[in-house]
Amino acid sequence: MADNVLRIGIAGLGTVGSAVVNILEERRADISAVTGKHIDVVAVSARDKSKKRPINLQKVEWVDDPRALARRDDIDVVVEAMGGDGDPALATVRLALERGKAVVTANKALLAHHGHLLATIAEQHSGPLMFEAAVAGGIPIIKMLREGLAANRIDGVYGILNGTCNYILTTMERTGEGFDAVLAAAQKHGYAEADPALDVDGGDTAHKLSLLTALAFRCVPHLAGLDVFGIRRVGIEDIQAAAEFGYRIKLVGQSRRIESGDVLHMVAPSLVPLRCALAHVDGVLNGILTSSSFAGESFIAGRGAGGLPTASAIVADLMDIARGKVLPYLFMEPVATLSTPMIVSSDAWQGRYYVRIVVADKPGVIADIAPILRDQNISIESLVQKGRGTEEPVSVIIMTHDTNGHDIREALSKIARLESVALPPFAMPVLDI
Amino acid sequence: MADNVLRIGIAGLGTVGSAVVNILEERRADISAVTGKHIDVVAVSARDKSKKRPINLQKVEWVDDPRALARRDDIDVVVEAMGGDGDPALATVRLALERGKAVVTANKALLAHHGHLLATIAEQHSGPLMFEAAVAGGIPIIKMLREGLAANRIDGVYGILNGTCNYILTTMERTGEGFDAVLAAAQKHGYAEADPALDVDGGDTAHKLSLLTALAFRCVPHLAGLDVFGIRRVGIEDIQAAAEFGYRIKLVGQSRRIESGDVLHMVAPSLVPLRCALAHVDGVLNGILTSSSFAGESFIAGRGAGGLPTASAIVADLMDIARGKVLPYLFMEPVATLSTPMIVSSDAWQGRYYVRIVVADKPGVIADIAPILRDQNISIESLVQKGRGTEEPVSVIIMTHDTNGHDIREALSKIARLESVALPPFAMPVLDI
Repeated sequence: MADNVLRIGIAGLGTVGSAVVNILEERRADISAVTGKHIDVVAVSARDKSKKRPINLQKVEWVDDPRALARRDDIDVVVEAMGGDGDPALATVRLALERGKAVVTANKALLAHHGHLLATIAEQHSGPLMFEAAVAGGIPIIKMLREGLAANRIDGVYGILNGTCNYILTTMERTGEGFDAVLAAAQKHGYAEADPALDVDGGDTAHKLSLLTALAFRCVPHLAGLDVFGIRRVGIEDIQAAAEFGYRIKLVGQSRRIESGDVLHMVAPSLVPLRCALAHVDGVLNGILTSSSFAGESFIAGRGAGGLPTASAIVADLMDIARGKVLPYLFMEPVATLSTPMIVSSDAWQGRYYVRIVVADKPGVIADIAPILRDQNISIESLVQKGRGTEEPVSVIIMTHDTNGHDIREALSKIARLESVALPPFAMPVLDI
Repeated sequence: MADNVLRIGIAGLGTVGSAVVNILEERRADISAVTGKHIDVVAVSARDKSKKRPINLQKVEWVDDPRALARRDDIDVVVEAMGGDGDPALATVRLALERGKAVVTANKALLAHHGHLLATIAEQHSGPLMFEAAVAGGIPIIKMLREGLAANRIDGVYGILNGTCNYILTTMERTGEGFDAVLAAAQKHGYAEADPALDVDGGDTAHKLSLLTALAFRCVPHLAGLDVFGIRRVGIEDIQAAAEFGYRIKLVGQSRRIESGDVLHMVAPSLVPLRCALAHVDGVLNGILTSSSFAGESFIAGRGAGGLPTASAIVADLMDIARGKVLPYLFMEPVATLSTPMIVSSDAWQGRYYVRIVVADKPGVIADIAPILRDQNISIESLVQKGRGTEEPVSVIIMTHDTNGHDIREALSKIARLESVALPPFAMPVLDI
């Protein structure tokens, strides 16, 4: 890089890329005072040049192909803010690393799918690939796991990592409206995408969780074998029943070392006890609880998405690069020595389960369900039948004693085949943390 | 430093220094895998060599004078875990920096009192002086302010920074017992020092706050002009009255930019609304809320003290040094350019106040108090007189509308002189964050 200038190219000028441009301009003097360097935007690239954007690009060169940013000799760092797990993001990041440039990305999907490949290339070319912005935008959880808690053996990571889902669940609780109505309103207000699948079906949480798992357990991201359950089936009656038990329902990505030494990771709407800090992460916020050998339980929360918080993380990474403060590896250690802990799925999850079964309101239904649970070694802690005496199907809500994901799955598939059961049963793990 | 070994000397072998030795031993292979270096303890020093300690010092040299660690050529980093704002800690840290060594310290008092001097020496000799362990042990708040949020203009920092005070307040709330009884029990169980003054009178919180203020507002630590109020006067009736208003009482160190552009910082028991994450930081935990220009509100909480969490932060700093990942300045930028924002005290604090006035239970007392408040432009939001009808003095509890610290102080000093007022009135700011 030039003596006192860090020259960057930005690929992607959506809300995040634009916010990076604006923050670098607004904070130019301060960034320079703190890092000893100016951070200059040399060139940018985005799909549509003619689009109106709230940024000043007068002194900045426009290139149509983002890969051209990676090829330029007058760029030290490529900021990848395009998103997507394939090209052009992948090609741009690869090329930049191969050219010995540093890369800063907000792209969780890219790293979740191609973490091993990109870590290998980054190492070969000694280029830092930084991704604080990829998980929980304004929350420095990547730095916390890689550096702040680096002395610890991490035992567990539990995260509310998707603001859209958390907004929907919080709004359902507050308004008493169902998932569909709240989702529609969220889309209208711009809190949810027109195609909400990646958010509400848990895929985005899975991408982020796989990166946290990689850092916490020193492995490469494993998307395969990650069981992902979204929030579409969470109903108002679940939220109310959970509240009666002293819990709130959150979409939690969890990853933790279990007794066998394996790492369990899964994404699922879960019952979180009110005493736990995660239960109080509301609206679009994100929050992450870690459990580690010496620091114990640590909790961090804040804005997880949006242009400014995400760009704040990208600029923090740029400032680290400007200060010469970068780690040598994409994940915790060289790719060659990254352990590959056995990653197990929700089948191995142990603890209590919340189960809702929608049944025809006829005598004897419980007598059909109870033996199935017994045969699967699932013991009932409490059972409540809601809304009896109408012609409508009613909900049977069961809180189990400790069991495991495999037995629950087996039992529910048998219960689903009962004639008196109207809908596939719905189960959520209870996080007694 | 030797090729693949970082050689350290540890000054002070109390719970923190001993825990550093143990963590380095237990995590030796992992630390080496992550940093590419071994971290070896070469020599140690403590007051009493004969004291039994739960650590293995067989391969480690003992020196009687901690300054000898700073003088040795076979030591790269001195870990200062002695504490205290004077010698031998000061002399040891100075000497180590002057010899070009890196220093890692957990000593908030030392940095709060001698931050300017030590930053100057560290810069002259390019030696990193790291202090993650000095504030909120297991919580990486130093890294969060210096690095994670570095792109932001910080607008405010609000911290529960002393575990002893938080334990006492939480226990008072839970048990209904008064300050003296809970303090005595805490001392018996080792949660409070035999001389609790530094904790309960707010001095320890002030030391830590001054370091957070220095990072957040890019200045040197200012202990002068920092108004510090401890928790001795907080009574059960205050905790109960606060709860009725929807607040909990916490000892909060706050530092924030006010309208004039000045920085206000103070330590005071404060009413924290239940909706705020700080209100839910219980027992010995610490928690810090930051407000910044792009990331918005960020919150981090965990164990603030104790051997292992504090040592976890020291070892994280050592790992950063081993990875070659250190910042060039003690605070955010060179001493020469650190701004000196005007630091103002509690007089400038603006917002609502909670006031308790203990009065003789006679008609007309309120008529004496009300004009004093009016003349100081303090408007009453609510007023409750507790425990009427006994012979005992009664408490008048007032929640004011927005006012400021200066007016409250003036009014209370006049109220204190009223004949019907039994004790100096007690006031706490209400944090409507």
